[in-house]
This record gives sequence, C-alpha cells and structure tokens, in this order.
Amino acid sequence: MKKIAIGIDLGGTTVRAALVDRRGHVLARTEDSTNAGAGPEQVLQQIKALADGLLAEVDPLTVVGIGVSAPGPLDTVAGIATYTPTLAGFVDFPLRAELQKRFSCPLSLENDGIAAAIGEWQFGAGMGLENLVYVTVSTGIGGGIILDNRVLRGRKGMAGHVGHMSVQANGALCPCGNHGCFEAYGSGTAFALRAIESAFQCSETSLGKDGAVIDGAAIFAAARGGDHLANKLIEEEAEILGRGFTSLIHLFSPDVVIMGGGLSHEFARLKPGIQAYISQWAMPAFREVPVVQAALGQNSGLVGAAALAFYSDALAGS
Amino acid sequence: MKKIAIGIDLGGTTVRAALVDRRGHVLARTEDSTNAGAGPEQVLQQIKALADGLLAEVDPLTVVGIGVSAPGPLDTVAGIATYTPTLAGFVDFPLRAELQKRFSCPLSLENDGIAAAIGEWQFGAGMGLENLVYVTVSTGIGGGIILDNRVLRGRKGMAGHVGHMSVQANGALCPCGNHGCFEAYGSGTAFALRAIESAFQCSETSLGKDGAVIDGAAIFAAARGGDHLANKLIEEEAEILGRGFTSLIHLFSPDVVIMGGGLSHEFARLKPGIQAYISQWAMPAFREVPVVQAALGQNSGLVGAAALAFYSDALAGS
Repeated sequence: MKKIAIGIDLGGTTVRAALVDRRGHVLARTEDSTNAGAGPEQVLQQIKALADGLLAEVDPLTVVGIGVSAPGPLDTVAGIATYTPTLAGFVDFPLRAELQKRFSCPLSLENDGIAAAIGEWQFGAGMGLENLVYVTVSTGIGGGIILDNRVLRGRKGMAGHVGHMSVQANGALCPCGNHGCFEAYGSGTAFALRAIESAFQCSETSLGKDGAVIDGAAIFAAARGGDHLANKLIEEEAEILGRGFTSLIHLFSPDVVIMGGGLSHEFARLKPGIQAYISQWAMPAFREVPVVQAALGQNSGLVGAAALAFYSDALAGS
Repeated sequence: MKKIAIGIDLGGTTVRAALVDRRGHVLARTEDSTNAGAGPEQVLQQIKALADGLLAEVDPLTVVGIGVSAPGPLDTVAGIATYTPTLAGFVDFPLRAELQKRFSCPLSLENDGIAAAIGEWQFGAGMGLENLVYVTVSTGIGGGIILDNRVLRGRKGMAGHVGHMSVQANGALCPCGNHGCFEAYGSGTAFALRAIESAFQCSETSLGKDGAVIDGAAIFAAARGGDHLANKLIEEEAEILGRGFTSLIHLFSPDVVIMGGGLSHEFARLKPGIQAYISQWAMPAFREVPVVQAALGQNSGLVGAAALAFYSDALAGS
C-alpha cells in the first residue's frame, strides 16, 4: 500500500496543502487565500478544511502524517509561533499543539525556510548533496541550511534567518525593524523600490512610463526589450545577491547555494552576475561553489513539510 | 592509567603544544616562534620537536592521539592546506598526511576556528550547550560553530569563516582581497587603524601623543584614564561587533556567542555595547542570546585539538 503524507505550507498570502508521496511527488494539491487578519482560530480552520478535503480522497491507513511549514521565527522546539508579522494574533501561540488537536495522525511543524531547504535537499536541486544553503528571494529573504547531511536548527529551531544578516551599517530600513539587512537590499521588494526611484529620475527608460506598474516582472521585461536602466538594475541586484551569497558560502561552506522564491523565476538572467561576484570575491577555496535554481518552485516548502512526516526521525532535531 | 592527548596549535606567529587530559586540563605546555617563512618542512620539524619533547615525559601507552589546529581555509576532508596566507609554502600541501608520517599515534587536523569552538564547547564557556558560535577577534576574525550538538564542518570542512561575511558593500579592503568584510571593520587591526586615523585628527586625545604606539591595549588604557576619543572608539568597536554578532545569531541561532581572541581580554569593557546592540536590533525571538567571554583564552584551540584526539568519533564529520 503506497504511503502518503500531507504537506501544508502556511504563508501570509496563501495556504497550500498537498498529498505527497515518499519520493516528493505531489499527487493532489489545493489552496486557499490565507485569512491572515482573522486570527489563529480562523487560519487553523482553513488548514483543517484543506487537509480534510485531501484526506477524504485517500485511505486513512496510507497517511503517515502531516507536515506543516509556517512563517517564522517559529520556536519549533516548543512548537510555538512566538511572533509572526504576517499573521494577526500569532503571538506566543501554541501552533503545533493546536494543529495536533485537530488531526489524529502525527504532525510536524517547521520554519518555512527550513522546510523549503528540506524539500530541495530531499527531492529537488540538492538531492544527494551533504551541504546546501537554500535562499528564497521574494517579498522578503528567507532560508534554511543543510550541513554535514543534517538539517540545521539551532536554538528554538530558528537557524537560517539569512535575510537578516547586516550588509550595510545603518542602511536601509528592513521590515524586521533593523537597518541594513540583506533583505532590505536584495529582496524583490527592495529591487522594485530601487527601480521606482531610478525610473523617476531617468527619462530614457520605458519603466513606469504611462503609469505602468514597476515590479520585478516589468523590470525583466523591459531589460529583454533592451532598456538600459532595467539591465543596470538587474546587474546591481545580481551583485547584491552575489555578495550576500558569498557571505553565506564563507559562513556555512555549502556544496551549492539554491535560490528559490519569486525572483528565481528570472534565475537565468541573474545567475551570470551572481556567479561572477562569487568567482571574483570569494576566498579562493570557495570560488567554485555554484548557485543553482530551486527545482521545486512554489512546492519546495510543501514537499519539504511532507518529507518531515515521512522521515521524521532522520530529519528531526537532536 | 590516565589517558592523555597532545594538542598542537599551529599559528602564523607561534606554534603551541600541550599535554591535555580527558577533561581539558593542560598538564604541560611548550611553544616556539613559528618559522613561518621557511616552508612546510621546517614548520613540520618544529611541530615534531615540540611534540617529541612532551611525549618524552609520558608513557607512550597513555597517549590516545594528536590533534592539530591550523590556520585555514584548510580542506580537512582531504587533509590539505589549500592556501594559508600566514605560512609560506602551505599551498595545496598535504598537511595531514605529512604530519601523520611523523607520528605513530592517530592524528586529527582541524581548522583553527573550529578547533577553538570545540575547545570552548567541551571544556570552556560553552560546556553543556547544544548551540554556540565562537568568534575570535584578534589580528583577524575567525570562528567555528557548534549546532544541534554537532560540530559544523560543511564542504571540505571549511564552515565558520565568520570574518568574511560582508558588512559594507564595497567597503574597507580586507586581507582576504575582498572589500567590506566583518574582519576589515571588527578586527583588532581595524580597531587600531581607526584609532590612529582619529587620533591624528583630534587634538584633545592622549592617544599617540609623544609618539606613543596606538594599539588595542593603548586605547583601552586611555579610555580608563577618561580619554573621550578612546571611549568613543571602543563604543564604535562594540557596535560593529554587536552588529556582526546579531547577524550570526540570526544565521545560526546559537544559545550563546563566545568571544575569544586578543580583543576579548577587554571583554568587560566591550560587552555592554555589544549586548545593547543585540537587545535593540536583533529580531525579538533572538534578543536574549548572551555574548560571553571565552573561558580558555589562548588555549581554546589547543585543548579543542586535543579533544579531537579523545573524542574523534563523536566530534568527527559525517
């Protein structure tokens, strides 16, 4: 009898749920817009409804468990959502216990960056590797790390907040409240903000003309059309990412850096600039470390969470 | 019969060797100025002579092995010194094999930052903890990380080069060749350099007057005497360290940051500024992480290397 797990990816915008097999294949998938402002009780009901919808399609005896990826910082040792900026009321909330109450099968809870790293490690761009740093570059920057063939968790299971290393003393304001974080420079949000500011001061760009929205997609489209400013902005973004990834390479010594998140859809355009930075500025022993695109796209966290259900002992903390 | 190990700490200036017992106590200690310009053969002879001097004092049957800490980046998977700036001729040099040839007991080789982290974890300020980041702030900045009760090694065993995370885009030149590394701002060298530059422009400081050398010790002495500039420089250094440590706390989620190296002799003076930065600017879930002084001083690496000989299986890579 083929065993399956339920993977849940709770995000600030969307809650996704999937039936996943032991090899990371998504057999069925469902989602809903997160009721982010309604408080934990409503969000838990959404998760319950999505999971029950999937469970109704399968023999309960085939379900090994449920893995949940949620935004952090999440204390996964205690199972508590200490404070989740994107979800109202998730303050010192006993998320794991409240979730477990609603299901009869075993349930695991993981910080979203770590869940996505596990997904890419077990089933994606990091399969078979012992060391990887996963970085998601999207509205914000998050991540997770696998080192020496193990998931890095640290105190309260909160390792891997790679978006909040400082890259500029007293620099740009970050959503975390600090100034100068990697996220405040390298995220898709920061990238678009720089584009808006530059386009305003530049008459020779097509960006934002006739009131068009300037976002990541618009910048890459303009660049493909030969827009000079757009191409310059992309080179700058690649350099910022290259510099940040070089720091991560020196800190963790991964075999590979895996880039996911919204901006990774344009990985082919960004990669040369990122890799050029690493090749030139990393210490010699680290220069060959490649940066690759996440293989699972939006599903990294979903299947990573499911992997926790399948391989809870091997993937568990110490 | 009481078992002992030999710990060797090969540095760019000094080679230290010690007889160490299972509990990390140094029973005998010897050292020599490193023949750093003479090439590997001469340095290996120095190590051999120091170790033989110690071995002559003990029953060979009590010696479990030799652990060697050496400056990196060192490929400890292959046992090769890829490139060691402070030691002439240590380029793609098979250091472990060449060392092992000279001794009949088992020999382990470790990057110096990791060896010191192991020392503090097993016998020093990190005893009993599952997660710690060790940072040595001296001529340069190095480090090593213990997470989830394991030594982090990563690709080629080179994890933990914490001095080479970028803290300022296109910033000050770092000895590694890049610009803007943590080391280029936070090291003792950078601290003294800022003091020299500021003292030159300031008439109201005692620093450097009458041709006195300006180094770390002089700055702290002047500060104790009420010198305004010296105190300002120390506050600035504490802030730089606090910002760097906050990044490391977000990246690794340690229970504690342990500060060693030359500058840690003035830890009591630096600590309030460091801790104030973390308390104010780390994300809420990380603000309570304490920074503490290394407990073993100069011996962290020496006893950490010896620990490798005692506990090679438990401390080994995957």
